[in-house]
Amino acid sequence: MTTLPKRLLVGRAMRSDQLRETLLPKRLALPVFCSDPLSSNAYATEEILLALSVGGLALLHLTWAVAAGVVLLLAVVVLSYRQTCHAYPTGGGAYAVSRANLGQSAALVAASALLIDYVLTVAVSVAAGVANVVSAFPSLGRYAVPLSLAMVLVLTVANLRGLRESGSLFAVPTYGFVVMVFLMLGTGAVRMAVGTPPVAESAAYRIAPAGHLTGLLALAIVLRAFSQGCTALTGVEAVSNGVPNFRPPKGRNAATTLAVMGAMTIAMFAGITALAVAAHVRIADNPARLIGAPAGYQQRTVIAQLAAAVFGGASPLFYLVQAFTALILILAANTAYNGFPILASILGSHGFLPRQFGRRGDKLVFSNGIIILALLAGGLIAAFDASTTRLIQLYIVGVFVSFTLSQFGMVRHWSRVLATERDRRERRRLHRSRAVNAVGATVTAVVLVVVLVSKFSHGAWLVVIAMPLVFLLMRGISRHYRRVDDELAPEPGGVVLPPRVHAVVLVSRIHKPTLRALAYARATRPDSLTALTVATGTGEAAALQAEWADRGIPVPLTVLDSPYRDITRPVLDFVHSQHTSGPRDVTVVYVPEYVVGRWWEQLLHNQSALRLKARLLFEAGVMVTSVPWRLRSARTAAGRASRPPAVPAA
Amino acid sequence: MTTLPKRLLVGRAMRSDQLRETLLPKRLALPVFCSDPLSSNAYATEEILLALSVGGLALLHLTWAVAAGVVLLLAVVVLSYRQTCHAYPTGGGAYAVSRANLGQSAALVAASALLIDYVLTVAVSVAAGVANVVSAFPSLGRYAVPLSLAMVLVLTVANLRGLRESGSLFAVPTYGFVVMVFLMLGTGAVRMAVGTPPVAESAAYRIAPAGHLTGLLALAIVLRAFSQGCTALTGVEAVSNGVPNFRPPKGRNAATTLAVMGAMTIAMFAGITALAVAAHVRIADNPARLIGAPAGYQQRTVIAQLAAAVFGGASPLFYLVQAFTALILILAANTAYNGFPILASILGSHGFLPRQFGRRGDKLVFSNGIIILALLAGGLIAAFDASTTRLIQLYIVGVFVSFTLSQFGMVRHWSRVLATERDRRERRRLHRSRAVNAVGATVTAVVLVVVLVSKFSHGAWLVVIAMPLVFLLMRGISRHYRRVDDELAPEPGGVVLPPRVHAVVLVSRIHKPTLRALAYARATRPDSLTALTVATGTGEAAALQAEWADRGIPVPLTVLDSPYRDITRPVLDFVHSQHTSGPRDVTVVYVPEYVVGRWWEQLLHNQSALRLKARLLFEAGVMVTSVPWRLRSARTAAGRASRPPAVPAA
Repeated sequence: MTTLPKRLLVGRAMRSDQLRETLLPKRLALPVFCSDPLSSNAYATEEILLALSVGGLALLHLTWAVAAGVVLLLAVVVLSYRQTCHAYPTGGGAYAVSRANLGQSAALVAASALLIDYVLTVAVSVAAGVANVVSAFPSLGRYAVPLSLAMVLVLTVANLRGLRESGSLFAVPTYGFVVMVFLMLGTGAVRMAVGTPPVAESAAYRIAPAGHLTGLLALAIVLRAFSQGCTALTGVEAVSNGVPNFRPPKGRNAATTLAVMGAMTIAMFAGITALAVAAHVRIADNPARLIGAPAGYQQRTVIAQLAAAVFGGASPLFYLVQAFTALILILAANTAYNGFPILASILGSHGFLPRQFGRRGDKLVFSNGIIILALLAGGLIAAFDASTTRLIQLYIVGVFVSFTLSQFGMVRHWSRVLATERDRRERRRLHRSRAVNAVGATVTAVVLVVVLVSKFSHGAWLVVIAMPLVFLLMRGISRHYRRVDDELAPEPGGVVLPPRVHAVVLVSRIHKPTLRALAYARATRPDSLTALTVATGTGEAAALQAEWADRGIPVPLTVLDSPYRDITRPVLDFVHSQHTSGPRDVTVVYVPEYVVGRWWEQLLHNQSALRLKARLLFEAGVMVTSVPWRLRSARTAAGRASRPPAVPAA
Repeated sequence: MTTLPKRLLVGRAMRSDQLRETLLPKRLALPVFCSDPLSSNAYATEEILLALSVGGLALLHLTWAVAAGVVLLLAVVVLSYRQTCHAYPTGGGAYAVSRANLGQSAALVAASALLIDYVLTVAVSVAAGVANVVSAFPSLGRYAVPLSLAMVLVLTVANLRGLRESGSLFAVPTYGFVVMVFLMLGTGAVRMAVGTPPVAESAAYRIAPAGHLTGLLALAIVLRAFSQGCTALTGVEAVSNGVPNFRPPKGRNAATTLAVMGAMTIAMFAGITALAVAAHVRIADNPARLIGAPAGYQQRTVIAQLAAAVFGGASPLFYLVQAFTALILILAANTAYNGFPILASILGSHGFLPRQFGRRGDKLVFSNGIIILALLAGGLIAAFDASTTRLIQLYIVGVFVSFTLSQFGMVRHWSRVLATERDRRERRRLHRSRAVNAVGATVTAVVLVVVLVSKFSHGAWLVVIAMPLVFLLMRGISRHYRRVDDELAPEPGGVVLPPRVHAVVLVSRIHKPTLRALAYARATRPDSLTALTVATGTGEAAALQAEWADRGIPVPLTVLDSPYRDITRPVLDFVHSQHTSGPRDVTVVYVPEYVVGRWWEQLLHNQSALRLKARLLFEAGVMVTSVPWRLRSARTAAGRASRPPAVPAA
């Protein structure tokens, strides 16, 4: 990106010492890190109802039981993760905890799971957000994919601009969503109390079961409903990963935020589920199985149906609920924009991903991670037609892998601390902590198995394939970096200087770039200087030699014959023979090169030179020197780029 | 492409002096250069019938008149082009003739027309070839596009292997097609004589006219039928373009070949049309307008219907006709594979296309042109669903543009020769030649207008847009090259040597590549030597300095501070300040660079170095030297590539 558009897009560059300033107070950390679990209330209830609808109306009375299971699980996980926040104020993501307590391989498994789930968080949240926009404006239905991709783009730019601005930008919609949901629940409760309970638009429809309902099938359906409801748990990870971004005392503030988030989510999830049951919301995974619905009936999201039932489908409050729901879902995707690049940067600095991920851009964010995340999520949205229901099948497996590893890691952590701690009160506290995490680990491990089994054939197998691939990729990269490091470690003795330096200047014709390359080469006073040209036709070489003599150029011109018209091979052979005659000497090959200002000019120039340069670098004892000749267009381009960036003086 | 797969694919490299050996005797030149006009008999009659079918059965009796017009035109054009072969033994394509006689702009117009038509020749011929395969094996119908693309690929590889092999490879199918068609015509004639005339499978159907047939509409339909029939003329150009590939006497041999081809085409075209009329072949542009046809009736090509009527639809001879028809059509595409790269190479050497087109690959063919042609034709086939009827709408406009320009050029040519010729007999001959070309020019100009008007709205408008674009592109490239040449022309005085050489070695950490770069830089004995590192974090620089001191490296380490973590800018500023303090000095920046053997390793290394190098080349008075460090993988790759190519010793 050239300088000016980049500045317009991502804002002013930031100095490294501005890093501290982006630490977040709790009231801003909550929207930044908790929009994901809060927002999942927008679809968790819906996913439970959808899963149960496979059994027709017969299983809908189990909604309560499933929801209760999810609430319990949520409480366990939040409690477990509060321990992590306290124990790892420098960032207690599953990767860090596993690495510290379970070793490298477990940590990489956790990392693979997390990377994949961050991508899915973006895809699922954006798709669900757009689904709520479509529920308010049904005519937008066929633009769901482009709308979703546009949302991803907006998020990407916002995040490239920096974390802090995200915090304030995202506070209003998050709190707005919470307020609107509680307002809706409160109004619904009041209406029920005064005897005019809200009735959903779909309350009159019946649902045809997908097949004959056996006991085993019913169990499978209920387990899948539970798995789907577990989406409410995603994002807890982001808080513990983001501990370093909290204001000190980091651990305590993060734990408090987590508790507040947990309480809010449980209240909202329970409330929405209760209201949906009371208002008789009917929703089916396949709209054709809704009996009594008019032809062409478009199912709206559960939130939309409830808001319409409580406030009226054309009231401003209905549109406000939909707006905030869509917004918080879009922002939930932002949780991943915080988590993914940080994790990728840690993996990059540990040598498990390319090192570029570890480099902060000039806005102090990890630009590469942000861009990769956006590309992957956008690809998934496009591949799955922005369908929340299809995307959600891939979701959660990764989350529970990392939950389980992280909680087991915490158990080990407390055991290790216990081994040295002697204070009895403190030991009791540690024992309690370990018990909490042990329960968490066991519960999440069981849920992981349930999720895997109940979702495998519905799409989760994709993740089961992708996770090991990511794992192996990271292991491979790490092995490569380690091997290269070994290869490059300098010997203690130092390096012997090459006794002689030979200069070779490549000549194709006599023009300014060639003459400049010759002059520069002569200025370095090499031990030998050869002007080299390759004759591919018959007449050319003679003409060149004549002009060479005419101009009285004080360097002899060596002509290589190339019956196969290949320019590269003769030059390589020449350089190689020089190396053979003086194995410790070094040869500098000067390549006159056009520097162009426009991309298409590159197609018209330098093609042979580039190919030759790439091959020369493979020869031993060779350096390749580009002697640039800036074409007029390049000088204009350089002027444009070297304009000082709009930054405050240090 | 690495060496071994390339050799397997395209065969052994050829020396420049082997070029003469690829000259073609007439019996091989005919299939190579004439398969296009010969093969068009496979669809020319069909296109006339299709065009007339718009008027229902009412206009079918005009088939004869239209065919007669095409035969007449063919005779005129062949006679005209024979003159060109005699006059331009070095290659008398429309481009060369226009350039010599009508000037640069006319030549570029001709070139644009030819380039586009070569692409269409490939697309149309391959699509028609596959259509004949499908006529023999109807179940292949839905694989038409992939089959066509596979054919393009086969042709591309064959041509990258070299022209000579093409000649012998292509002789059998061409002569086979000619023999089979004449056998079919002869058998048909005998059957008519003995009273059992062949009857086409579609003879019983009627055709509903597309609308009410007015006189004006009838005229338009007849003119369009004539335009469609003119496809029989394409390819004449290829013979005159290919004159240099004939054995001497080149001009005379080419003219003879052209005459033989003309006679063959006229006989075949007239015969097929006569047989189609006699056997009552009914074919409609829209199969729905065939009255009496069974539901789901798949129209077969006219050739297939005739062969089935004459020989029987399941006889081996039927399949033989289809096989040779398909083969010669595929080979017709080969005409363009001969013409396009040669034209592109001439345009490249004249500076109207990138210079790479002018470079012969190591099989003596112009590889770049072949590959571009294949990509463009493949794209057209994919875009038009391999439909001959839709592709053919774009065809022929370009052919007649170049015909007309070329013939007018020939008129000018003879006039110029006449101006100096004094011998009376010779003058009479020249006058006759000029008259032939004048008739040719006038006729083709009239036909060009007819073709343009009658096909414009059916698709020819695409070509009318594309031709000026190609023209402007070539003019733009030419202007660019000329401007650069002016810019690069050396002054007579010579170049002043830079008084001092400064060396700057970029250091990121202390490892072998850095130490080697330092050693190499010291070996060149520069006037000043700076080891330069950019500190982006806090601790790193101090650690580096400590290790630097520890190792006792005899060059001071300069640390640049980069609060914005950008590595490029501080280095550029440093180099720039050095340039300001000695504007005539030159600075050599040594960049330690990993040389990797596998493409993906490039993603893991060198990213910062590459970006920095590209920016440094924009600075004044700077050379950039890559000091390569070959990783182990690169050494293996180099070993593989440097294996001597399998060529005979000179």
